[in-house]
Amino acid sequence: MKVLVANLGSTSFKYRLFDMTDERQLARGGVERIGDQQSHAFVEIGDQRNEQTVAAPNHAAAVEQCFAQLTDGETGCLESAGEIAAIGFKAVHGGRAGGVARVDDEVLAAMDEMARVAPAHNPPYVAAMRQLREQLPQVPLVAAFETGFHQSIPARLRHYAAPVEWADEFGVRRWGFHGASHRYVAQRTAELLSKDGLRVISCHLGGSSSVCAIRDGQSVATSMGMSPQSGLPQNNRVGDFDPFALPVVMERTGKTLEAVLEMLAEESGLLGLSGVSGDVRDLAEAADTGNEQAKLALDVYVSSIRHYLGAYVVELGGVDVIAFAGGIGENRAAIRRAVCEGLDGLGIVIDQERNAAAGGESSVHAESSTTQIWIIPTNEEIIVARQTQQFLQQT
Amino acid sequence: MKVLVANLGSTSFKYRLFDMTDERQLARGGVERIGDQQSHAFVEIGDQRNEQTVAAPNHAAAVEQCFAQLTDGETGCLESAGEIAAIGFKAVHGGRAGGVARVDDEVLAAMDEMARVAPAHNPPYVAAMRQLREQLPQVPLVAAFETGFHQSIPARLRHYAAPVEWADEFGVRRWGFHGASHRYVAQRTAELLSKDGLRVISCHLGGSSSVCAIRDGQSVATSMGMSPQSGLPQNNRVGDFDPFALPVVMERTGKTLEAVLEMLAEESGLLGLSGVSGDVRDLAEAADTGNEQAKLALDVYVSSIRHYLGAYVVELGGVDVIAFAGGIGENRAAIRRAVCEGLDGLGIVIDQERNAAAGGESSVHAESSTTQIWIIPTNEEIIVARQTQQFLQQT
Repeated sequence: MKVLVANLGSTSFKYRLFDMTDERQLARGGVERIGDQQSHAFVEIGDQRNEQTVAAPNHAAAVEQCFAQLTDGETGCLESAGEIAAIGFKAVHGGRAGGVARVDDEVLAAMDEMARVAPAHNPPYVAAMRQLREQLPQVPLVAAFETGFHQSIPARLRHYAAPVEWADEFGVRRWGFHGASHRYVAQRTAELLSKDGLRVISCHLGGSSSVCAIRDGQSVATSMGMSPQSGLPQNNRVGDFDPFALPVVMERTGKTLEAVLEMLAEESGLLGLSGVSGDVRDLAEAADTGNEQAKLALDVYVSSIRHYLGAYVVELGGVDVIAFAGGIGENRAAIRRAVCEGLDGLGIVIDQERNAAAGGESSVHAESSTTQIWIIPTNEEIIVARQTQQFLQQT
Repeated sequence: MKVLVANLGSTSFKYRLFDMTDERQLARGGVERIGDQQSHAFVEIGDQRNEQTVAAPNHAAAVEQCFAQLTDGETGCLESAGEIAAIGFKAVHGGRAGGVARVDDEVLAAMDEMARVAPAHNPPYVAAMRQLREQLPQVPLVAAFETGFHQSIPARLRHYAAPVEWADEFGVRRWGFHGASHRYVAQRTAELLSKDGLRVISCHLGGSSSVCAIRDGQSVATSMGMSPQSGLPQNNRVGDFDPFALPVVMERTGKTLEAVLEMLAEESGLLGLSGVSGDVRDLAEAADTGNEQAKLALDVYVSSIRHYLGAYVVELGGVDVIAFAGGIGENRAAIRRAVCEGLDGLGIVIDQERNAAAGGESSVHAESSTTQIWIIPTNEEIIVARQTQQFLQQT
């Protein structure tokens, strides 16, 4: 079975194509600047890369363009697009739609309900999925929601202390996100340590970040709650925030609730706090040259990761593995070092040299550390491909 | 110097009168049902208790009534009200007014600014203070704000990841509350263990609850943020909540932002989640008879305490003392046990028998525990009295 895993932006479509018999990646590619006069399509098959300037007025046209590249008689890897069993989407907020679902009217309605909760994520997916359903009805579409991995979180950690009917009727609860990445980390650490029952704290750190407590492969708590704007500070999204600050900001700025929430979703996080950038690389550079606000933003970020790390050490009653994944988690040794600093008393000791030198999947804890510390280059796409395959086989 | 420490409700005035030469409590008393046709005044001096039905149309009249009882020729303990050097208020949200301040126009304006942030707390204080200033101008009024103890929290834990000018210009930051209680715990644990540099996690658990990380007597982090509605679930206030749930609730209920925030401040917390009561005693009783929602509310409460406990174990790099204070912290052995459960691996072990039998100031950790666990009956009034005295001596 061949599965194409899609990653959507509002003007981009990127994919990886897997042969699920051996989980081999057959191709990757995508289209950028969808809707522009000239869109840019690329495909990589083996060590061949082809690029084209194409007309892709919308996402459906972009997908057809990708299919054309994949089935090209000379450079393609498929006889026909019909070989693609399904497109699997790493979709964000499914709300009541659940973990994995065929994209139908009900699923799209559930995603629409959460559009204001995940304003950067849900609207482009819903728009593109609607279009693909209409224009490529022959291709099955499967949504593997980022919330799915967190369905195992117990009620005591899922509920806000709000009127209980808000949870039941309106879906006001902690949903959690980055499910594909945390699921990959859960599976991979279990493989690496050849051990069941592991207590893992997965730190997915990137443009968007979250921490997840995992016991025996299952999520038991995570830092993101109702929305992907909560938990850790994100690149330009706020992270945890007290709603009773809203009337103050509205009164003092003269802005509406909608406008203030938009600022929390687009002009906050590391960007808002630093006034410099939402990118940790830029912040580190600025901090090195003495920019105090950039340093503050990095310190807030690290303190927030440590906040959840501690909460989950207690939740799990100890931790066997701390895993770092995501662009920052995999590549920023200074952030990993700062997260683990001063925790010798808890048996968490990073090896400074190994950490500084590490690249790719590797352990970076010191001999004396009772907790193992790993860098796990995450693979969200293979998780979505597996979930899509499993879904198709079961239905 | 004699200092009267006031605790205000919207229709009540309660006080303790201290002689600060030896910190002896000379009297306690108050007036209830202020504004009713018949108010109820009481005073306790030594082992004498006197009660009266009086006319107290407002807080100023109530205070004069209390002064009359204190200076009564037969049963009083003062020659004249002039002996009272000041009234010290355990005031809640001072915002930019700082830690301890004489109640003047500027302080009242600062408290007014935070009225919507602390709707249950600031308005009655501001109203009563204004009245006392007008009608009893001869008595100095000093506000010791609950936020004061938390001024030592470092910037990296004080800031939300919101646009940084919101912090500087609008006071949108983590302020923290229950300062008098956490300060008392900090001082008392240092005395009990005769040790400087202690790492203490103070759990003030009551109708209103917060957890505070203390290093060497100073607050370094606390669970309440911008408002006293944040952090742990409170009796009827929500605790931590994702602001991006607000538009969903507003849309689904047809309520305004103001009305939804009011529900978060009055109909949420343990009450909203359980549908039974905001009182832990009622919830424990209901849970014992099989009420699942009551059990859920208690579980959410304990999980949230453990969340902050863990965060602060990491923040402090370990913990020397966990202290329980407040009505629940001092009297509910089952909550203390649940908070400490399963933490043997972290060196935190409660002694089940000592915990169950404990009354008053006492330690309840097991021999094997590397962290000491204490019950500290808090004394917020003596802290306010000391702060008031110190303020008067310095100004």
